[in-house]
Amino acid sequence: MPDSDLIAAVRAKRPLVHCISNIVTANDCANILYAAGASPMMAEAREEMAEISALADAADLNLGTPSREKYAAARICLEESNRLGKPVVLDPVGVGASSWRLENAARLLSAGKPGILRVNLAEAEALLGLRRAEQGVDSPGEDSALRRRARAAGGLAGRFGCAVLLTGETDIISDGRRAAAVRGGSAFAPLVTGSGCMLSALCGAFAAVTDDMFAAALAASRYWKLCGALAERLCSARGPGAFRAALMDAAWSLKDSSRLEEVRAERLEA
Amino acid sequence: MPDSDLIAAVRAKRPLVHCISNIVTANDCANILYAAGASPMMAEAREEMAEISALADAADLNLGTPSREKYAAARICLEESNRLGKPVVLDPVGVGASSWRLENAARLLSAGKPGILRVNLAEAEALLGLRRAEQGVDSPGEDSALRRRARAAGGLAGRFGCAVLLTGETDIISDGRRAAAVRGGSAFAPLVTGSGCMLSALCGAFAAVTDDMFAAALAASRYWKLCGALAERLCSARGPGAFRAALMDAAWSLKDSSRLEEVRAERLEA
Amino acid sequence: MPDSDLIAAVRAKRPLVHCISNIVTANDCANILYAAGASPMMAEAREEMAEISALADAADLNLGTPSREKYAAARICLEESNRLGKPVVLDPVGVGASSWRLENAARLLSAGKPGILRVNLAEAEALLGLRRAEQGVDSPGEDSALRRRARAAGGLAGRFGCAVLLTGETDIISDGRRAAAVRGGSAFAPLVTGSGCMLSALCGAFAAVTDDMFAAALAASRYWKLCGALAERLCSARGPGAFRAALMDAAWSLKDSSRLEEVRAERLEA
Repeated sequence: MPDSDLIAAVRAKRPLVHCISNIVTANDCANILYAAGASPMMAEAREEMAEISALADAADLNLGTPSREKYAAARICLEESNRLGKPVVLDPVGVGASSWRLENAARLLSAGKPGILRVNLAEAEALLGLRRAEQGVDSPGEDSALRRRARAAGGLAGRFGCAVLLTGETDIISDGRRAAAVRGGSAFAPLVTGSGCMLSALCGAFAAVTDDMFAAALAASRYWKLCGALAERLCSARGPGAFRAALMDAAWSLKDSSRLEEVRAERLEA
Repeated sequence: MPDSDLIAAVRAKRPLVHCISNIVTANDCANILYAAGASPMMAEAREEMAEISALADAADLNLGTPSREKYAAARICLEESNRLGKPVVLDPVGVGASSWRLENAARLLSAGKPGILRVNLAEAEALLGLRRAEQGVDSPGEDSALRRRARAAGGLAGRFGCAVLLTGETDIISDGRRAAAVRGGSAFAPLVTGSGCMLSALCGAFAAVTDDMFAAALAASRYWKLCGALAERLCSARGPGAFRAALMDAAWSLKDSSRLEEVRAERLEA
Repeated sequence: MPDSDLIAAVRAKRPLVHCISNIVTANDCANILYAAGASPMMAEAREEMAEISALADAADLNLGTPSREKYAAARICLEESNRLGKPVVLDPVGVGASSWRLENAARLLSAGKPGILRVNLAEAEALLGLRRAEQGVDSPGEDSALRRRARAAGGLAGRFGCAVLLTGETDIISDGRRAAAVRGGSAFAPLVTGSGCMLSALCGAFAAVTDDMFAAALAASRYWKLCGALAERLCSARGPGAFRAALMDAAWSLKDSSRLEEVRAERLEA
């Protein structure tokens, strides 16, 4: 596990994270970036994509509630960020829900390279061509074997040459060479829309403070699992509405990595 | 009143509810569906509408913050859902606010048939051609006589051949043959944007677990009134911000219909 | 400082405030308007802009997450509101983030005249041509000298012939003839996305109940600073998630201007 304190590094650098977001979770993504000490910048028009990509320290391309415009903007951002050596997180929300989403995600992934690909198992398998239809975008209650999940993460990492963060009850992080599993969090997390989107935004913040995308994805996963566990306690498990607000409070309360050991992370065979 | 436990049925089936949403309340609609045990899927691009309509168990067409694109997508979804026999909820938000909204809602209603039409009194009267201008989209403080409201609901049900849920301090449910009134809820509800939108999304969840659209609308109304009453207690009436989060917690806490009797529902002459 | 009770006047008139909003903060803007006793109406399609502008008591043009469509709609709304003598608030979110934003804001400001321009220092200086790039849209931690901020506010007021509300740790209000500074609020405010957007929406509500745009901007600033201070106490400073919900509760709890004196406001040399 990496030793550098990326949580403190985000607060020290205050990176500008540009998000192409969606109408469902844009607010949560901006707020979680503030809570973690980063600075959000939300934009989606192609006319300003190159300029804003150059301004930002990292980009998070969230493909939920897609449109032609958004795909065009995401492509410009990905190409420009690649050209400038700035990290990009790709979150292909519900990519298996339509052939149009799948084609556009594939086109995007052939136009450039994300540093981190953040997916759930259904999205991973859709991208790998293993299945298409899915139950919603978050697939809660997923209890597929760790092996299946690790294989999917490793397969994506190999195919797209990036770090992969495959989330679920257990998160898998892989970059093809290294792999890890992170457990913990809260059972409320899959009951809050955007818990995956927020994690992707956080990946952007962490990717802005290290060159190691595996380390960034791993730190984001552990931080977010810890936020979930703390939020559940903060809100006394009152329900998903209270939990959602408490996620922001938990993220804000963590100023460095000193409590990350509360989240179990273990190396896997890559 | 129907006896089957639709609240438990939603949790058992976990229906995929596809929402064409709006930029104001998309997040709340997704979260309330999760809280009720359903699975939200938010999409609005015409390119994927037919495919996603086929994937979903029910659709909720919310016409707030409208655009040409959204109207085109809503039409495809309505036609495809009708063709496949899948239930559609139509929520013509603020339809009286412009002639453009009114024309597009009328065009949509002539292209296909919703299972449930969810409106407030101003929207109902706009659709019936009784008046156009309105005070905002939620018309809080509405104290029109029950008779006027029941007439509007029955008129819409007759004209469009669907169940109507006309909301306000007292909700009216009508399908032309049957009618009911549901009282209760919280005085905070009209102070929270999206309380109507969330109810429409819930109608989609209930419509996915019964063939009786009147029963689905009635169950959604009673469930939502009970959520309001519980949320007000949960948040100690602290204010609309606390109430909004508590709505999610209340919805999540109700696992079956055992407490629905706390909400007064009575048959009306149809 | 003006004596009339604009907080009570908003609750008495319940003005319809039309907002061209953005996907990040539309929900918060609608909810804060309800909490303050106003009635929100969110729309952004050019097809209905003239009609809705005529229906509304005031408009709030928020240029965050911009698109060509939104700029076109904002222009129609500004021109029509000017023609009808209805007040307009302009909030050029992150205007310094791209040359495209800057050009479109300039074009809008040459097509019509807002009553109130609500900006932070970075946005003010971008509009004045003093600098372009910026750190995000909210510039928290801004501790520029009062003098620099007052000069920027006065400069904008002079150039665009409107009242200016330049927000930060200390808010500056100026209309070229008069100037004031408002202190207070909460350190959590810059950690919540949309705290500026919500204030702009509130400016719309206050502008609907007085002809004096300086007075409206000043009242909105003082009200919002007081809401921030109260919200911090209400949520026991638990974090930005709890603070955000408490902002709504605080705004709702203030029924008149009797507690405004808790916020320090002082006249400045104009």
